[in-house]
Amino acid sequence: MNLQHASIEELQQWEAKLLTEYNHYCEQAIALDLTRGKPSSDQLSLSDDLDGSLKGNYFSQDGTDTRNYGGLDGIAEARQLGADLLGVNTSEVLAQGNSSLTLMFYTMFAARDFGLATKPAWNTEATIKFICPVPGYDRHYTVCEKLGIEMITVPMTATGPDMDAVEALIKSDSTIKGMWCVPKYSNPTGVNYSDETVERIAKLGTITSKNFLVFWDNAYAVHDFNEYKPLANIMDFTRQYDTEDSVVQFASTSKITYAGSGVAFIASSTANLNALKEVLNVLTIGPDKVNQLRHLRLFPTLDVLLEHMKKHADLLKPRFECVLTHLNNAFSDNDLGQWESVEGGYFISFNSRNGLAKKIVKLATDAGVKLTPAGATFPYGNDPSDNNIRIAPSVPSLEEVDQAMKIFVICVRLASVQQQLQAN
Amino acid sequence: MNLQHASIEELQQWEAKLLTEYNHYCEQAIALDLTRGKPSSDQLSLSDDLDGSLKGNYFSQDGTDTRNYGGLDGIAEARQLGADLLGVNTSEVLAQGNSSLTLMFYTMFAARDFGLATKPAWNTEATIKFICPVPGYDRHYTVCEKLGIEMITVPMTATGPDMDAVEALIKSDSTIKGMWCVPKYSNPTGVNYSDETVERIAKLGTITSKNFLVFWDNAYAVHDFNEYKPLANIMDFTRQYDTEDSVVQFASTSKITYAGSGVAFIASSTANLNALKEVLNVLTIGPDKVNQLRHLRLFPTLDVLLEHMKKHADLLKPRFECVLTHLNNAFSDNDLGQWESVEGGYFISFNSRNGLAKKIVKLATDAGVKLTPAGATFPYGNDPSDNNIRIAPSVPSLEEVDQAMKIFVICVRLASVQQQLQAN
Repeated sequence: MNLQHASIEELQQWEAKLLTEYNHYCEQAIALDLTRGKPSSDQLSLSDDLDGSLKGNYFSQDGTDTRNYGGLDGIAEARQLGADLLGVNTSEVLAQGNSSLTLMFYTMFAARDFGLATKPAWNTEATIKFICPVPGYDRHYTVCEKLGIEMITVPMTATGPDMDAVEALIKSDSTIKGMWCVPKYSNPTGVNYSDETVERIAKLGTITSKNFLVFWDNAYAVHDFNEYKPLANIMDFTRQYDTEDSVVQFASTSKITYAGSGVAFIASSTANLNALKEVLNVLTIGPDKVNQLRHLRLFPTLDVLLEHMKKHADLLKPRFECVLTHLNNAFSDNDLGQWESVEGGYFISFNSRNGLAKKIVKLATDAGVKLTPAGATFPYGNDPSDNNIRIAPSVPSLEEVDQAMKIFVICVRLASVQQQLQAN
Repeated sequence: MNLQHASIEELQQWEAKLLTEYNHYCEQAIALDLTRGKPSSDQLSLSDDLDGSLKGNYFSQDGTDTRNYGGLDGIAEARQLGADLLGVNTSEVLAQGNSSLTLMFYTMFAARDFGLATKPAWNTEATIKFICPVPGYDRHYTVCEKLGIEMITVPMTATGPDMDAVEALIKSDSTIKGMWCVPKYSNPTGVNYSDETVERIAKLGTITSKNFLVFWDNAYAVHDFNEYKPLANIMDFTRQYDTEDSVVQFASTSKITYAGSGVAFIASSTANLNALKEVLNVLTIGPDKVNQLRHLRLFPTLDVLLEHMKKHADLLKPRFECVLTHLNNAFSDNDLGQWESVEGGYFISFNSRNGLAKKIVKLATDAGVKLTPAGATFPYGNDPSDNNIRIAPSVPSLEEVDQAMKIFVICVRLASVQQQLQAN
């Protein structure tokens, strides 16, 4: 399907054929959902041994009764697991509640209003800006928006954010105080940051103000479909460049055990953690230590956890392969769409021809396939090229993914043909 | 022991005798702790059926898989339990995470920076003040302090805060935006707010600005040592006075099941809850619904929960009676101390002669009995009369409480005699 060299008659024939196929699907009462990066029920069931795992022993390794108050840092063994997950020392990580997003909000709030290890607080200046690689994760954007932090975009590449653009921005604008990153199986492009990208990000703290802060949301740290391939260690790079205070890492077990009932981790310099704890200590007596203990009974070490992740991969990989096969078959020989091949995480990011994302999402929705609203992967919901669509195939069954992708491909083709017809 | 009419010789003899007794205790390696309002291990064990309670069924009544993301409001049956606990409709309560303190912080932050149902946000004015009945709970004070909210004190009486003082303050100072309350078994005085006090608090919204907010921390709502005696229903009073937006109620299961791993509730007008959710929705995908379900499996109704609270009472009541017996025996016929008899909650509040609280706490600590630091029950840690000491006897065994109180009584007597000697 080469639209640019097609005649109007050919295009009209294609449109008619695609409309017939499309209407055929619309007439069926299809209800498929590719919107949310959620685990499926089968994935959730992999962790059902959590219930009953305590067996009357509520004491953590250091003798703490986890059922009682206290322990703001989290239990020691949970911190150890978080340290292994994020490549830091145990003293450089806190094990907390069920949401890493909450920890990101707290960190942004603390840095804005009180300052972390490096002062002053960001709100001592009138304008605060953050760099957002796009496409990215809408929940990151809403944290910035709610806290009055302006967002500037840089493009994502196959090796991470466009670091030339990032460095140039930081050099030219001192109101830029930080940057969002999803370094592994990036949401939504599925890209892993290269070693060079990781090193350059660790080095940003040397070229800008003291209180610059990278939010390193390593949500998919162990979510490989094949073998476990850890990222280059950003904490080690920050030690090398003396920028330990410029990176805060986040992770959680939300997509390891239960999505709403896991354990979240935050890792950074102890100076940053101590500053953050001055806020944490005001708003809580401590995290749910019993739930931390439950998790450690299931995953006493990172190796055990990695074995568990293989079971997730067994469920996820076929669904992602199905999506990629459909995209390859339909679009590898034409200009109707681009995407990255992904080997982990929860998303595939599809770029249509410019100006078609909203239309494709609407066509798909009308045919019974729900997709994340177009624009959601950009700050303020504004995709200037209107071409990015996030595909999240984890929840539907393999058969449902297959059917949904058949419809998706038709929607992309139909929207593209109609666009070409208008252009001709 | 009537110090005012005693001669110097008598005082000196008492001092010598008390010093002998005191030093006798100091020589033993006693280590007792009356500092924290925590449940004892025996109390925590009452809820150990939580582990294993899910039995493979993770679905809430409306069919939600609690293990997955979503459900910002909490599961319906948890909201029902919270509604019954706080005397509101289900739509007027959210079931959240493990900490009501966190919900208080969020509410204070949201009202300050964004405004709840009534606008404008408090921070549109330069000064924000809160009324704190004293003695009170130090964690409430640190929330205000961290968020830059000034605190003004009013005295607690046997029926709750001095409402004449509260009303006069509010009429005279429009920068006062709210008030802290622990209405049942108040921390630390153990007092229950009378029906009249509850009604007058519900009416405060009629005499002041639209965005006045009562923080009604009903931490001990069901924590009676004898029968369950609910407070007058403040939500009903606010309906009567059209002030539903002026009261936000809080409760949790922290002292019902596990102190750090329970379920917290917030109740208010749906307009207030909707405004709060605009913040909650930014910082979390939702609360730990699996833990909520665990709790509902243990306590499907408020009645079942009230039965459970009788087991707590069986453990707590003897400890409190022991404290009260010691205080009665030692101080009922003299001016060395005042306190309220308490029938629930976690604290007994002791007022020594003025200027002695710090000294008594130090004497006790040196003899091996840790007490909450003097001043902690007042904003900014400043007890102007230096006379209030909070006694928390829940954790030590009955024998330990008995020994700790023997030492406490000696410390009070010794400090008082020495003060009288200096005054003579």
